Amino acid sequence: VDYGGQTSTDGTPLRPVDARWLDSVTLGEGNTPVIELPSVGETLGLNSLHAKLEYLNPTGSFKDRGTAVVMAAAKQHGAAEVVEDSSGNAGASVSAYAARAGIKAHIFAPANAPEAKLRQIRAYGAQVHAIEGTREAVTEAALAFHHEHTVMYASHVLSPYFAEGTKIFAYEVFEEFGAELPMHIVIPVGNGSLLLGAWRGFSELKDGGSINYIPRLHAVQASGVRPLVAAFNAEDEPANNGTIAGGIAVGSPARKAQIVEALHAANGEAIAVSDAGILRWHAAIAEREGVFGEPTSAAAFAGVERLVAQGTIGPWDSVLVPVTGFGLKDVPELG
Amino acid sequence: VDYGGQTSTDGTPLRPVDARWLDSVTLGEGNTPVIELPSVGETLGLNSLHAKLEYLNPTGSFKDRGTAVVMAAAKQHGAAEVVEDSSGNAGASVSAYAARAGIKAHIFAPANAPEAKLRQIRAYGAQVHAIEGTREAVTEAALAFHHEHTVMYASHVLSPYFAEGTKIFAYEVFEEFGAELPMHIVIPVGNGSLLLGAWRGFSELKDGGSINYIPRLHAVQASGVRPLVAAFNAEDEPANNGTIAGGIAVGSPARKAQIVEALHAANGEAIAVSDAGILRWHAAIAEREGVFGEPTSAAAFAGVERLVAQGTIGPWDSVLVPVTGFGLKDVPELG
Repeated sequence: VDYGGQTSTDGTPLRPVDARWLDSVTLGEGNTPVIELPSVGETLGLNSLHAKLEYLNPTGSFKDRGTAVVMAAAKQHGAAEVVEDSSGNAGASVSAYAARAGIKAHIFAPANAPEAKLRQIRAYGAQVHAIEGTREAVTEAALAFHHEHTVMYASHVLSPYFAEGTKIFAYEVFEEFGAELPMHIVIPVGNGSLLLGAWRGFSELKDGGSINYIPRLHAVQASGVRPLVAAFNAEDEPANNGTIAGGIAVGSPARKAQIVEALHAANGEAIAVSDAGILRWHAAIAEREGVFGEPTSAAAFAGVERLVAQGTIGPWDSVLVPVTGFGLKDVPELG
Repeated sequence: VDYGGQTSTDGTPLRPVDARWLDSVTLGEGNTPVIELPSVGETLGLNSLHAKLEYLNPTGSFKDRGTAVVMAAAKQHGAAEVVEDSSGNAGASVSAYAARAGIKAHIFAPANAPEAKLRQIRAYGAQVHAIEGTREAVTEAALAFHHEHTVMYASHVLSPYFAEGTKIFAYEVFEEFGAELPMHIVIPVGNGSLLLGAWRGFSELKDGGSINYIPRLHAVQASGVRPLVAAFNAEDEPANNGTIAGGIAVGSPARKAQIVEALHAANGEAIAVSDAGILRWHAAIAEREGVFGEPTSAAAFAGVERLVAQGTIGPWDSVLVPVTGFGLKDVPELG
């Protein structure tokens, strides 16, 4: 697999790459607002709850942070075309940054992907390849295309450049909170690209002496799709029963071992929440704080509720939740 | 009409109010990115074209700037409920900030408004009142509700607080560009809330000695709905033939006279563009720059094309365009 000069095999340790020499490909990603959530915080029995509105990135999700660096690498290496497999936020993000870089994007997506999501991808001029079969079949088709046509695989999961972008999340949290970093950051996790980026960013800050402690990083999954929760707790691989939270409906995350390792290193927990809980919090943060996230983002708040209930988060602990994707992108059909 | 202590009659001169004493109601609005558009700029024959991504405000449009101040005033005056008439960006914005302020929002909308737009409004817990008949009938119903129930009218068109929020756009342009302000700012105009706010902001900066000149502010409308273009050119009132650009489909803007006055004062033009041109630019900025705006936002680029063609904008003039609303909110149905 060719990530523009860098080579990597699936699931190998996420090693740092030096992205500093790349000419930037930017749409103004990052510098997302941090706001307090006093009403929801009070309900959860928390003294301090903040949200970082990651959905206010250029294509409506945090993915833009990573894509910007991946696409800068692609451009630097003279790629004329890239391929990615995602019908969701990553597909839209790669399509937009490819357009920005003057690169043609091929997006492989399940044939039954929601039309609304494909519409954003097509708007950026990307070519959508609809694939029948499982999610895994889509990835295989993308990889086959990559090999057959020698087109760079701009994977948000596997490219070592992606975490070089998402790590900036941690730097911005430091910029916002300074020495008084949040004690907990609760993240919805599918392929783990934000969690792994945050872990790298905070590790760099700690190694460099800028911060004294790394916030505890917790991973939230849906009960129906919880491979990381199972792996973290050394349980048997669970069945994939699906979830309304499309962004974390990842049955076999390629970087599973690294995510579990990062969670242990960051003194975090991995917990699962029900779709009912996700819908309840999806409504609560919109109706009571004016924050309209994706169901995937709402899962994190259901996770905070669980972590408070089990005593992992105490009432005086400060908590930060990234709102990862815009509600406009994925509105659950309700009665 | 009661704007929380301030009184104003429809269409009266837009006078400044002092919003500094208000406790803020914020969702992190403002500080939107400015990016260069080299590819589209080259096509237009321009040396310097920038976009300010106003769609990266908390509800996906620039309206949040004004709504934040209107809702701060509402909260300060102890309003428990507000009423607004809009099925579009303003309705979503008022709903979100009302939720944030703990205020119940009543949104009056045409019975035939697109379900996708109403979905965002409902997500914030606002009560939608569907009204049969013309757009004017919707406003009348909202005003009747305002009088009957003594509920504050949180109008993005009439509240004097609104422009106190949108004027910050001008301050941020100054912060970004410094002394080298863009020579032209090209704005899609329906009710004119961004244009009037920008004019006020730049006027304050000039009066205070921070800037030496005010950028020329141009208004772009759709050919099908161009009351301001007609008024600016002293033509007869045109028929309302509709447009795909929902954000500027305003047949009778309440502040028409003030907008025309501001355009003359800002040495601007008022021009009309076709729906075909809007669709062409809607695709071009997404496919070639990775910027996915609403059709309304694309109208401004069609406007730049016209202004260049007629010689108002020269090849060495620097141009700034606000991308006012997110493409996710209003995707035109295409073949």
